[in-house]
Amino acid sequence: MNTISVEKQVIEVVKAAKASTRRLVQLSTEQKNAALEAIAQAIETQADAIIAANALDVKDAQAKGLSKALVDRLTLNEQRIQGMVASVRAVIQLPDPVGEVLRTIERPNGLSIHKVRVPLGVIGIIYESRPNVTCDCAALCLKSGNAVVLRGGSESFRSNQAIHQVIQSALANTDVPQAAVTLVPVKERAGVDCMLGLVGLIDIIIPRGGESLIRKISADSKIPVIKHAKGVCHTYVDSDADLAMAKSIAVNAKCQRPGVCNAMETLLVHQDIAKAYLLELAEALKAFNVEIRGCDRTQAILADAKAATEADWDTEYLDMILAIRIVDSLESAVDHIQQYGSGHSEAIINQKQSTAQAFLRDVDAAAVYVNASTRFTDGYEFGLGAEMGISTDRLHARGPVALEELTTYKYIVYGTGQIKE
Amino acid sequence: MNTISVEKQVIEVVKAAKASTRRLVQLSTEQKNAALEAIAQAIETQADAIIAANALDVKDAQAKGLSKALVDRLTLNEQRIQGMVASVRAVIQLPDPVGEVLRTIERPNGLSIHKVRVPLGVIGIIYESRPNVTCDCAALCLKSGNAVVLRGGSESFRSNQAIHQVIQSALANTDVPQAAVTLVPVKERAGVDCMLGLVGLIDIIIPRGGESLIRKISADSKIPVIKHAKGVCHTYVDSDADLAMAKSIAVNAKCQRPGVCNAMETLLVHQDIAKAYLLELAEALKAFNVEIRGCDRTQAILADAKAATEADWDTEYLDMILAIRIVDSLESAVDHIQQYGSGHSEAIINQKQSTAQAFLRDVDAAAVYVNASTRFTDGYEFGLGAEMGISTDRLHARGPVALEELTTYKYIVYGTGQIKE
Repeated sequence: MNTISVEKQVIEVVKAAKASTRRLVQLSTEQKNAALEAIAQAIETQADAIIAANALDVKDAQAKGLSKALVDRLTLNEQRIQGMVASVRAVIQLPDPVGEVLRTIERPNGLSIHKVRVPLGVIGIIYESRPNVTCDCAALCLKSGNAVVLRGGSESFRSNQAIHQVIQSALANTDVPQAAVTLVPVKERAGVDCMLGLVGLIDIIIPRGGESLIRKISADSKIPVIKHAKGVCHTYVDSDADLAMAKSIAVNAKCQRPGVCNAMETLLVHQDIAKAYLLELAEALKAFNVEIRGCDRTQAILADAKAATEADWDTEYLDMILAIRIVDSLESAVDHIQQYGSGHSEAIINQKQSTAQAFLRDVDAAAVYVNASTRFTDGYEFGLGAEMGISTDRLHARGPVALEELTTYKYIVYGTGQIKE
Repeated sequence: MNTISVEKQVIEVVKAAKASTRRLVQLSTEQKNAALEAIAQAIETQADAIIAANALDVKDAQAKGLSKALVDRLTLNEQRIQGMVASVRAVIQLPDPVGEVLRTIERPNGLSIHKVRVPLGVIGIIYESRPNVTCDCAALCLKSGNAVVLRGGSESFRSNQAIHQVIQSALANTDVPQAAVTLVPVKERAGVDCMLGLVGLIDIIIPRGGESLIRKISADSKIPVIKHAKGVCHTYVDSDADLAMAKSIAVNAKCQRPGVCNAMETLLVHQDIAKAYLLELAEALKAFNVEIRGCDRTQAILADAKAATEADWDTEYLDMILAIRIVDSLESAVDHIQQYGSGHSEAIINQKQSTAQAFLRDVDAAAVYVNASTRFTDGYEFGLGAEMGISTDRLHARGPVALEELTTYKYIVYGTGQIKE
């Protein structure tokens, strides 16, 4: 297919998605939930068709010699289908953010002004090989009254088409227009490029995937992007920390699931307690085969530690590797985090409240913790329900991108004939 | 100056502004207000220096033959200086948005999560010839804990430098770092281009000026932009409107100050009351010499009306010109607004609540009104205090961009040793 016909096709379906927003703002919570339940049921009853389409994608991926990890992310089985269904039903249980009155202002001239939450409009999702994203994102966007334009990785093309088709069949008997869940119908990379230029038709782009995808989308998009850049998360163990607590938290932050964005990548340790703490910690990390890369002072304490290079301080390992630096003070710890951190999640372990307050105030990140593992930064753990990801941006949404973050607001003004003097 | 040395200079001052944000987040409301009061006093006492610098800009502008309107916007006199001082003192009176707890979440595992308002960081303002913007924006940014990087029009270069110097002299004796108010020190257009690429140093760009400036900045910026596109505002007079009220509101929305973004540009009238209403209204508009451009049906009623062309429906006249269209129904009115409106302010005049509710729900704009003039859309009239402008975007800020809209938030999490299971 040539680029012109790709563009034509993409624009056509996105226009339909945009048009569907006119209907979406009129729907009640009950109407949206009924559509979500229809989707959940359709996925359950048509699981075989989805798994069959997915098997073809998996076969191709294996034939192309794609990595085991990628093939695993791509693969759908009965259990993962059940996971998709459960996710949709979890979204039904979440409160509807639309219509929430954020602020009411009564003016001396009698105007009554209400700042009310409304859907964002059309949300474009660009993702990699996990086909469940198709369904998870559709559910979150529908619940928040948005239309969604989905564009998954080419290796999951047939899986996404199958899931999309099941959703379409479900929506046919509901009040939600089918175009509210739109899948970009072309496999070509030009489909993404076209999406990123549709200012006025797509209101926001959310890329979901690895660092390079996100960097490329952010650089190319003409539409605002909410992005998760990366998670270089720090834990700082202060001089008066409870060292047993600090050990338990550091082991958890590093080892409980190292491949995720809220796992710790660098540990900062106050010099006064460095020796006692690091010797104990290193012992505990051995059980998880954690490779340690330390600064000079760390190496002087931990003979097995490799030397950390400048590059280590801003690397998101997503692996059983930990960078360790010994610092002179809270200020040095904050300086390090401000220089190398990615604005995701940062923790201090200490017992003195005034120091903790300075850390919480001075560290600039989506989530700052005192005496807890950074692994808690996600929508579910924060009590916000399911989410699209964690934003490391500062505008519109920061931290978990849950239902509320998929909305905007408008001012509704009730008058009785007021005119401006 | 060549482009490389322009870039070097811009980057240097912006880096200093960024560095100042570390200190800004530590300041109390009292410290910020004291700095604002110092600025107000310095402007009062050094008004002569500002007016003298401004006189040189004005002389150059006149010599270059710039328009009278532009020279007027550029000119500072004793009265306008007093206006600047009053604006700064008005900002002192506004509540400090920083530190506001937006949400508190207590989790079953004992984590206590606080979503807290914090400054955005560094705000870049690109504006045209009004020198008072230098001072107004500095005050709003400081109060909200942000650093500001200002870049005014080249014709007001000396005026802006003088105002900036006065602000610097005032800040020298306060707790606010001088770099928190930074003026781009170069006159060249390359200075703007450089600013727009400083991702990671400037957090947000707010252009203030005409449509072409805003369009250009939005197209070129690598940094998120909050923008006011244009204000093509509608008033829809429904079949059961109180026609006297509808007349008073339409005259006010069009004529009270036609050159502003929240003035009405197009009037939509239900066919059932069109004849009676338009004959009365036209009489009232005559007093203001309003030129009417109407659809066929309007022309059939108002013999003097010119024919409206397609282009009239999406033109922001900012002048004593009014486009009028007669529509069959509420739905047609909403269709027209959705097609041609700019998402700024839209009003319905009617007495039936169910129709009004449909209009308020279905019209997608920053502000939607029932029975009031669209002229009320601004920060002051909404009770939000001073503002940077009206955003017609949907992300982060919509409608008046006041102090709260110059902030973001972070999650502060208090634990007692919690680790993820």
